[in-house]
Formats: sequence, C-alpha cells, structure tokens
Amino acid sequence: MNDEQLIGEALAEAQRGLADGGLPIGSVLADAQGQVVARGHNLRVQSGDPTAHAEVVCIRNAGRRRDWRELTLVSTLSPCVMCTGTGLLFQIPRVVVGENRNFMGAEDLFRERGVELTVLDDERCIAMMRDFIAAQPDLWHEDIGL
Amino acid sequence: MNDEQLIGEALAEAQRGLADGGLPIGSVLADAQGQVVARGHNLRVQSGDPTAHAEVVCIRNAGRRRDWRELTLVSTLSPCVMCTGTGLLFQIPRVVVGENRNFMGAEDLFRERGVELTVLDDERCIAMMRDFIAAQPDLWHEDIGL
Repeated sequence: MNDEQLIGEALAEAQRGLADGGLPIGSVLADAQGQVVARGHNLRVQSGDPTAHAEVVCIRNAGRRRDWRELTLVSTLSPCVMCTGTGLLFQIPRVVVGENRNFMGAEDLFRERGVELTVLDDERCIAMMRDFIAAQPDLWHEDIGL
Repeated sequence: MNDEQLIGEALAEAQRGLADGGLPIGSVLADAQGQVVARGHNLRVQSGDPTAHAEVVCIRNAGRRRDWRELTLVSTLSPCVMCTGTGLLFQIPRVVVGENRNFMGAEDLFRERGVELTVLDDERCIAMMRDFIAAQPDLWHEDIGL
C-alpha cells in the first residue's frame, strides 16, 4: 500500500473507535513493502487507560520485535509528545500523518531526531477530528492532558 | 514520604518485577503530600507489551484523572524518551530518578520543557540495574529499542 492507502487503513481504525464511543484516532504500522503489520485506535474511553493513544496501542499490538527500524508509523492525527517519544524509543524511521490542523503534536521533535515525517492533510481525517472535538470537547482535552 | 522513601517504593516495585522474571525497573506516582497514588513496574517480559515500561505502566495504573499537574513521577532508572514524552503529555511537573549511570534517558527533554528533575544516584538502584544488564544483556537492549 502507498501512504494514502495506509491512511485509509488508519482512518478505518479511527472509525472503529468512534463506533465504540471512543476518540476517533487510528494508527497502523507498515513494513517496508507497505504491508500492515499492526493496527490500533485510541482506547482511553473504552479501557480507562490514559496512555492508550492510537499509536501506543498500535505499537503495543505489534508486540516484541526487532524490525522497528524498517517500519512506518501511520496516524490519522499528528502524534502527541508521548506517541512521538514512543516512536523515537523504537527508532521507527518514518511517520505518515493524516492531518495536523486540529492538533499539532511534537513534529519538531521527530524532525530534530531525523525521522522522515509526511503530513498528508487528508480532508477525511480533518473533518472527522473537527466534528469530534466540537461534539466532545471535554473528552478531547482530557486526552491531550489538558 | 520524602524522595528517598519514594525511591524505596519504586525499588520495591522493581524487585517485584525481577522476581517475576522481568526487568527490574519500578515507578510510583506521588501526590503533593508525598502519598503514593499509583505504582508500576516494567512488564515487557510478563505481558509481551513493548510499551510496558515502568513509568508507562504506573501512569496507566493511575487511570483517567485531572490532577497530573500536582504529581511527582518517581523511577528507579532515568526515563527513556517514551516515558519522558508520557510525563510531558500529562504535564507532570516533577520527576525523581534513582540513577542514570546504567542508562541516561531523555533528561534534557524534561529540563527543556521546565520539568524539575532530581537524580538521587541511589546505590541500590545502580547495583540492581548493573547486575541485571550483566546477566541479561539481550533483554535489556530489546527494552531500550536496540
């Protein structure tokens, strides 16, 4: 899959989370051939775990492995500083982001550490997050630690 | 409890992890009165979750709350970039570290963002981690993403 297709997979994850009453943020990890190796979506509401952001859940689901440096982390929304730190710990070299208009994460930190970051500015991701923040501002602010 | 006593609590968590065959790294969160509000230890081996560092597990165990900005995060070992990012997301203002001789985490990132960081250079923490790294180097390197 190419980056646009991978964002489509992350978006499907986000929509699963939304359907379950959670935050609509989704993530996938893809290998060098563009095959999805793990998926995840934000589970804060569903599990009560404040660290269960989409990217952390996706990396958790990827399990114990040694090929992190060949993977691409894909997220519907610009990764926060926790998710950025998680990508940096595992030395994931490439990150694809759906949008950073509704929330700008720690993109500078990824770039400072040499990670290749692509922001697709995807209209579907923008609309999904905008609508969610308008509908559930308290849940959103809790999720980003405010 | 004071910082030395809190490190003693984190050390007890680390020893629980070691007794279960895991990495001996422990963490607690304390409130402004020095009372422990959450505990955790590294669970990578026990759970197969690569994000289950002591500090992340401790914050996970703390659950959904709004008092992060009054808490102190205590860890036997200097927090890695993932755990640092997690503390920053929740705007935890104070971090107490047992030691940074066996591993230097992202302390600069904490300091850059205005977090008050205290390193106790605790001999028990140093010896525990040194002995573990000597005994299980592969497990240690996997844990820090190498």
